[in-house]
Amino acid sequence: MTNPINPTDDTARQLAQDLLQSARYGAIAVTRPDTQTPYAARVAMLWHDGALLTLISTLSLHTKALAANPACAALIGEPGDKGDPLTHPRMTLMCTAHEIDKSALKSAWLTAIPKAQLYYDFSDFKMYELVVSEAHLNGGFGKAFNLVADDLAV
Amino acid sequence: MTNPINPTDDTARQLAQDLLQSARYGAIAVTRPDTQTPYAARVAMLWHDGALLTLISTLSLHTKALAANPACAALIGEPGDKGDPLTHPRMTLMCTAHEIDKSALKSAWLTAIPKAQLYYDFSDFKMYELVVSEAHLNGGFGKAFNLVADDLAV
Repeated sequence: MTNPINPTDDTARQLAQDLLQSARYGAIAVTRPDTQTPYAARVAMLWHDGALLTLISTLSLHTKALAANPACAALIGEPGDKGDPLTHPRMTLMCTAHEIDKSALKSAWLTAIPKAQLYYDFSDFKMYELVVSEAHLNGGFGKAFNLVADDLAV
Repeated sequence: MTNPINPTDDTARQLAQDLLQSARYGAIAVTRPDTQTPYAARVAMLWHDGALLTLISTLSLHTKALAANPACAALIGEPGDKGDPLTHPRMTLMCTAHEIDKSALKSAWLTAIPKAQLYYDFSDFKMYELVVSEAHLNGGFGKAFNLVADDLAV
């Protein structure tokens, strides 16, 4: 059987870094606490100081899911309006989530995502770090790479 | 605690239908067969004759995951390049996947997604129906609805 995974090189690491630096949102996959089945939601995301952050409301099912089971995945690399979405580079990051203090990150977050000013301080909005263990990078057909956490460090 | 879910009405059902009709791809959330942790991938999707379809390669981890555990979720409603991605309507569909014969669907699929002509007939590409049990519609802040399968029928 064909192995579709290429050896990781610096071009792949640079593409991964570009996707992380430009991500402002993505899809998060979690396990539903009531059914133990997969669940996905769109959430704001930001790569800041080598950490993947998300600001999410405790009213949301995905936040309740993370509180019950911190294993999750993040899909970043949004195709926008141009070209074939399935040839647009994207990356799935395997993560473990934990809540962190959002107060120290306010300036960094609002610089990147100014519209969050409207709700950043709401008490139900919590900041989570998604600690990445590995990543699957898909740069388009025939351009798949499996990365480890060290490949994402600059 | 605030309940953020609104009663389902025809406006919500119409928005759900619009998202289904316009979806050409989305994020699929599955359970990784090796680690039993959440995984997400971007896949082509099409709402056809009241069924949610996806065309995926058996070389992909998400396809292997569905073969091992058909419970999945689909996130549709892509923001494109305009506006605030977190106020753009999207919907999470809770699904069970099963493989179906792709030969009868070729014309419908290629009419909607012409670029799939390049790989539709590849033997590793399989068509799955994602049978929807319920859906969480998020029309933007304060516009959340929980739908059942009947709400998606026209």
